[in-house]
Amino acid sequence: MKWWGWGVEGVSFHHEDKPRLAPFVRDKVGIDITTPAASAPLRFEDLDIPEPQLPDALGDRLTRAVGAGNVTTDPMERLVHTYGKSVRDLVRIRRGQLGRMPDVVVYPSSTEETAAVVDAVVQADAVLIPFGGGSNIAGSLEAPAGETRTVVSVDLGRMRKVLQIDEESGLALIEAGAQGPDLEEQLNKRGWTIGHFPDSFSHSTLGGWIATRSSGMQSDRYGDIADITRGLTMAMPPAPGQEKGEVLTLRPLPSTSTGPSVREMVLGSEGRLGVITEAWVNVKRVAEERVVLGYFFPDFATGLAALHEINTSDASTLVARISDERETQFSLATSKRSKGLSKYVTKALMAYLVRKGWDLDKLSMSFIGYEGSKSHVALQQRLVREIVGKHGGIVVGKGPGVLYDQKKFDTPYIRDFLLDRGATADVSETAAPWSRLKPLYDNVIATAEKAFADIGCQGYIMCHLSHNYHSGACLYFTFAIAYEGEDVLARYDVVKRAIQGEFIRSGGTLSHHHGVGVEHSPWLEDDVSPAGAKMIGRLFDGTDPGRNLNPGKVVHTGEPGVSILSE
Amino acid sequence: MKWWGWGVEGVSFHHEDKPRLAPFVRDKVGIDITTPAASAPLRFEDLDIPEPQLPDALGDRLTRAVGAGNVTTDPMERLVHTYGKSVRDLVRIRRGQLGRMPDVVVYPSSTEETAAVVDAVVQADAVLIPFGGGSNIAGSLEAPAGETRTVVSVDLGRMRKVLQIDEESGLALIEAGAQGPDLEEQLNKRGWTIGHFPDSFSHSTLGGWIATRSSGMQSDRYGDIADITRGLTMAMPPAPGQEKGEVLTLRPLPSTSTGPSVREMVLGSEGRLGVITEAWVNVKRVAEERVVLGYFFPDFATGLAALHEINTSDASTLVARISDERETQFSLATSKRSKGLSKYVTKALMAYLVRKGWDLDKLSMSFIGYEGSKSHVALQQRLVREIVGKHGGIVVGKGPGVLYDQKKFDTPYIRDFLLDRGATADVSETAAPWSRLKPLYDNVIATAEKAFADIGCQGYIMCHLSHNYHSGACLYFTFAIAYEGEDVLARYDVVKRAIQGEFIRSGGTLSHHHGVGVEHSPWLEDDVSPAGAKMIGRLFDGTDPGRNLNPGKVVHTGEPGVSILSE
Repeated sequence: MKWWGWGVEGVSFHHEDKPRLAPFVRDKVGIDITTPAASAPLRFEDLDIPEPQLPDALGDRLTRAVGAGNVTTDPMERLVHTYGKSVRDLVRIRRGQLGRMPDVVVYPSSTEETAAVVDAVVQADAVLIPFGGGSNIAGSLEAPAGETRTVVSVDLGRMRKVLQIDEESGLALIEAGAQGPDLEEQLNKRGWTIGHFPDSFSHSTLGGWIATRSSGMQSDRYGDIADITRGLTMAMPPAPGQEKGEVLTLRPLPSTSTGPSVREMVLGSEGRLGVITEAWVNVKRVAEERVVLGYFFPDFATGLAALHEINTSDASTLVARISDERETQFSLATSKRSKGLSKYVTKALMAYLVRKGWDLDKLSMSFIGYEGSKSHVALQQRLVREIVGKHGGIVVGKGPGVLYDQKKFDTPYIRDFLLDRGATADVSETAAPWSRLKPLYDNVIATAEKAFADIGCQGYIMCHLSHNYHSGACLYFTFAIAYEGEDVLARYDVVKRAIQGEFIRSGGTLSHHHGVGVEHSPWLEDDVSPAGAKMIGRLFDGTDPGRNLNPGKVVHTGEPGVSILSE
Repeated sequence: MKWWGWGVEGVSFHHEDKPRLAPFVRDKVGIDITTPAASAPLRFEDLDIPEPQLPDALGDRLTRAVGAGNVTTDPMERLVHTYGKSVRDLVRIRRGQLGRMPDVVVYPSSTEETAAVVDAVVQADAVLIPFGGGSNIAGSLEAPAGETRTVVSVDLGRMRKVLQIDEESGLALIEAGAQGPDLEEQLNKRGWTIGHFPDSFSHSTLGGWIATRSSGMQSDRYGDIADITRGLTMAMPPAPGQEKGEVLTLRPLPSTSTGPSVREMVLGSEGRLGVITEAWVNVKRVAEERVVLGYFFPDFATGLAALHEINTSDASTLVARISDERETQFSLATSKRSKGLSKYVTKALMAYLVRKGWDLDKLSMSFIGYEGSKSHVALQQRLVREIVGKHGGIVVGKGPGVLYDQKKFDTPYIRDFLLDRGATADVSETAAPWSRLKPLYDNVIATAEKAFADIGCQGYIMCHLSHNYHSGACLYFTFAIAYEGEDVLARYDVVKRAIQGEFIRSGGTLSHHHGVGVEHSPWLEDDVSPAGAKMIGRLFDGTDPGRNLNPGKVVHTGEPGVSILSE
């Protein structure tokens, strides 16, 4: 990963092959993306990286735990492990605001080595922050400002093997540090897939998915990571006065009635209970057939109603998403000159829609995917086509689906491109019951527009629905503001807080799949009620009374009882 | 509910219309069920019911909380609230061994009243045990022997309304004391169903299902109660020094990434965190078509393989269960003389199977159900028939399915019938990955047979598979021993422990859907590892430091670290 942005060095977003994008961005956000970058990150050499604070005794013990080559205080290593990839992280790191960097990075290679690291850190009263792919955007990877104890980043990057596949049960035992493409390749070679493809897939890990309750774009068929994870191993802190912590071991089980679910306590714990080292996950045979089709609806409300009906029908989908008119316009503006979507979204199609009476400014684009045997896929397509037609939508074929599959992991690159050109873009997502989705959507759009006005910046917000459940779905909002001055984060916060507050007021959760971290912790009490927040806090404090494990994450550490809503 | 057995007065099991049952039981368990009851429960008048210990101050406060007519120390009321319906409970109560009976029974009518009761009990340092339908078989309803504090049974029986249906989202808000038939009738009237039908359905409540992580026979389509429950309200104990406890309020959400799931902490908490008063649950429209078909397989292993393949195919089922040869024989022996199963399982069919080369002693009977639109149901039947045929099984039509639907809630009555006639019968169920099911089954049968020999009693054990998941399924064992002397529970314990221990050794969980209580708590550490058991314990003790709420349940309170396996 680049230390200053998303993805690998040498890969970035370009606008030159997308002729409609520059006019679109100029119109909607008010910036000119054709000019050279207005604001570049500092160079590594110009950063002011503080000396690490690593007591010799702790350094020696970490070295004994994982071997000399796997403990480093190298500045670039520490830099890469300082933040995740939220817009706040990117803005700060590009400016050289490095916060409380980790003092040392440690690479264990096994559960035993990880347990030894946890023991060493807790006994030295230092701070441990688990690090997977570093793609977190909720602030879950950052040490608290002013942390005076030694900060140890534990990178699981050496633990990336698929250890075992139970072919009869469709279960795989995988090390927590395995990144998406790596573990998927290991599984695919043997004919299996985990089916978990979050936007961060290329740079996120199994352990990170579990620690933040991730969800992949194919969750309609494969479930959220909470469903996929059937067992796990976690190195836990020693109790006060003890030499060694215990290793939590949850055997793979399809279901159980054993008390409050320990598995569900680990899911979403963001490193506060220990370091997840391995997990048993559901895997499926790579399907015979996989098809993703594009659909157009005359407007978002109509498309939402259609997706809802699909969800209550007997049809089963792999993925079903629909963009509002705003995101549809953006998608059309990012189509390339000569191939992909533009080939299909021809003048002829648009003219046909206009003749049908559609207002093209309200066009709402949808992707629905199917997986299974050929006959199963064919049947589901037919069932969906009937419902889509009933709601006045049309099928526009495989082209958009192929393009969607190609582009699906590229979105995060756009953020760096925009930051380089004076705009700040971010995402906020929620989940809510079907009855609340449209009102929530309307409220969030209005709230964001008001926030843009309040901060005096031109802004744009767009949305899609994805991840369908019996009782509701996820709404995923992307927003951008044309501003990059000193106080950009203060202005960004006004917008982000307005959106998050509206999620809660409108009956949504604080985040559907990005986790809580510190970005969303102010809404924890609003989401699970004060009593629920205390239960989570008691679980953390009971397990880690010294708050050595990723302190400050999930549970709001501001003034007790003060939530954003009551401000 | 009868105080001494299952179900309502006047309803019981009869053998007279099942001519093959008496010879079957004589052969397998060695008792003669045609003789008059060898052992009847004591009469209520002959029971030695102790005086209630209810301090005036607490009595007054409870009365203020719920009203004078809803606080009672009536002996029959206290008796009914003393135990659940495990075989241990029935044996003891029939003998008049009443243990630590509750001193008072309280009937709140709202969350507010329940919260006032919780506050009163905790501040008086008394003990509170929530009571739903009283059907628990894991010892979850019993006060610890020697409990010196006042014991308050909180019966949710007045809270049984469906408060609200969100028709757009398929969500219903239902009071926790609603019993199965009552809530289902309220939902059905408006065209909805919860789809949750555990064997205990007729006498169990929504709150009880949630508190014990229940699963219904149609879980393949509707999910376990953990999936069905999307939000809830729970009255929690006041913190030390506080006047009032908080009310946990989890809004209905289809999914969320908010930290360790508070919802999942309440599921399976068996009253140790508070009293569940209301819940938002998934409900579905009553389906257009519902069909349950019977299938025969030449033996259990073949049937298991077929069910596994159905589960990994594109077919979707409502319910799919298969009995081993032992349970098949029992089912055939319970068929009535002139109608139902016997009509279909004719000599001709059996002769045909013999001609096919089947060994009728190994016959394995299966029920598979389908629900949805007519075309969906027809398609799923066809998909399943192909797989069944491939494995050498045959469809035997709707007759057995109709009978199964009629009899499905009657099974618990058989236990009382057998107790009356000198046999002790019970159930133990587990869930395990597909790869472990057949070895687990073989091991449990062998272990039980050895245990029968060890205690010197003739015994019988039989099994069915139900509740299918991607990675595994539930195996449900029923066993009986021909013994009813003074030490029957000691002998029963030898068998029960042997089976539970074998579940764990063979890779299963301690219970798939009966909960932990005190019957299964000795295996908690084996199931979730010692670290996991400590996490559960910290959650309970942090929330209820005085251990006023249903003390001793779920977490093993014997010597720390001593599990049955290491005995």
